[in-house]
Amino acid sequence: MAEPIDFYFDFSSPYGYFMAEKIDALAAAHGRSVRWHPFLLGAVYKVTGEVPLPSKPLKGDYSKHDFERSARFLGLSCRIPEAFPIGTQIAARAFYWLDERDPVAARAFALAAYRAYFGEGRDISQETAVLDLAAAHGADRAGLAEALAGEAVRNRLKDECAQAIARGVFGSPFVIIDGEPFWGVDRIPQIERWLQTGGF
Amino acid sequence: MAEPIDFYFDFSSPYGYFMAEKIDALAAAHGRSVRWHPFLLGAVYKVTGEVPLPSKPLKGDYSKHDFERSARFLGLSCRIPEAFPIGTQIAARAFYWLDERDPVAARAFALAAYRAYFGEGRDISQETAVLDLAAAHGADRAGLAEALAGEAVRNRLKDECAQAIARGVFGSPFVIIDGEPFWGVDRIPQIERWLQTGGF
Repeated sequence: MAEPIDFYFDFSSPYGYFMAEKIDALAAAHGRSVRWHPFLLGAVYKVTGEVPLPSKPLKGDYSKHDFERSARFLGLSCRIPEAFPIGTQIAARAFYWLDERDPVAARAFALAAYRAYFGEGRDISQETAVLDLAAAHGADRAGLAEALAGEAVRNRLKDECAQAIARGVFGSPFVIIDGEPFWGVDRIPQIERWLQTGGF
Repeated sequence: MAEPIDFYFDFSSPYGYFMAEKIDALAAAHGRSVRWHPFLLGAVYKVTGEVPLPSKPLKGDYSKHDFERSARFLGLSCRIPEAFPIGTQIAARAFYWLDERDPVAARAFALAAYRAYFGEGRDISQETAVLDLAAAHGADRAGLAEALAGEAVRNRLKDECAQAIARGVFGSPFVIIDGEPFWGVDRIPQIERWLQTGGF
């Protein structure tokens, strides 16, 4: 049985969203499953000295245009919300809390959170929005609210960010297949060939 | 008659090299020609505050791996030379001097310079290497050497860099089709669809 593919993403990353819409089917077509790992680009940028894409001179303007063009190219829709980028620690902590209880619901919550943010412009940095989305996927709303106020989910997300950095993750999306790293949704063609051929 | 496609590249950029191997055939398949514009990433980075990819934490190591994997994916070969990145102002100035005299020879020189650097590890930052490559493509070696010592080719390259920045070019390769900007060799699939459909 082949090892699952690891998929790292930040909930505020449009390219991460596009990969989230594609990665499970892509992996399944080659008999592979996927482990989802939300992380915080902010935690990575503290190590790398990077700044968020939209605030970069020249590249920032291009990126906003490329986000929406790349969505159309991939058959998806994406409108960059006015509040962008946003803090995604609450959504990421909720994901891990859900994932420990019901991995299928956690996956559905993650996709729903991405679609709410990039499809409907809902501000998923807010706890209320996160609780609504989680409850819609069967979560115990009060239990999740209590967990979000505690230390355990904070520490879990901190650990996940540290592990991501230790594995060389510096951007979103980031996919690791049998140790081979792929950064960016534009690496889908290489990922497909890698899965087909076992490496090239 | 459709406008030519503009192709911006730095001679020290592996992804620029890959695009140089692909762009003319890609454009020709859709009845388009290409204007080649070598520029200096260093001049752009002065404006954007960017640093060269290989010196970035985490991303630098990934990139060196991705350069060679992307080359294999595209059916090309690429070995990153020990001296990398290098200054490419002499190669770029020589290109523009050649281009004013014989655009076909200038194009052949550019591809030969890329292949010499990324294929054979020749240090094309050196004037001797540039003169050798240009002479091999029919250039008047003494005439080019004299030009490289003068002001005209320096000013031409400065103007080209300023124009690139004014058009929003922030990386290499950068392709502009009828005003639509595409950054990166991984945008080839989007470029192909754009040329097929006139936009999407």
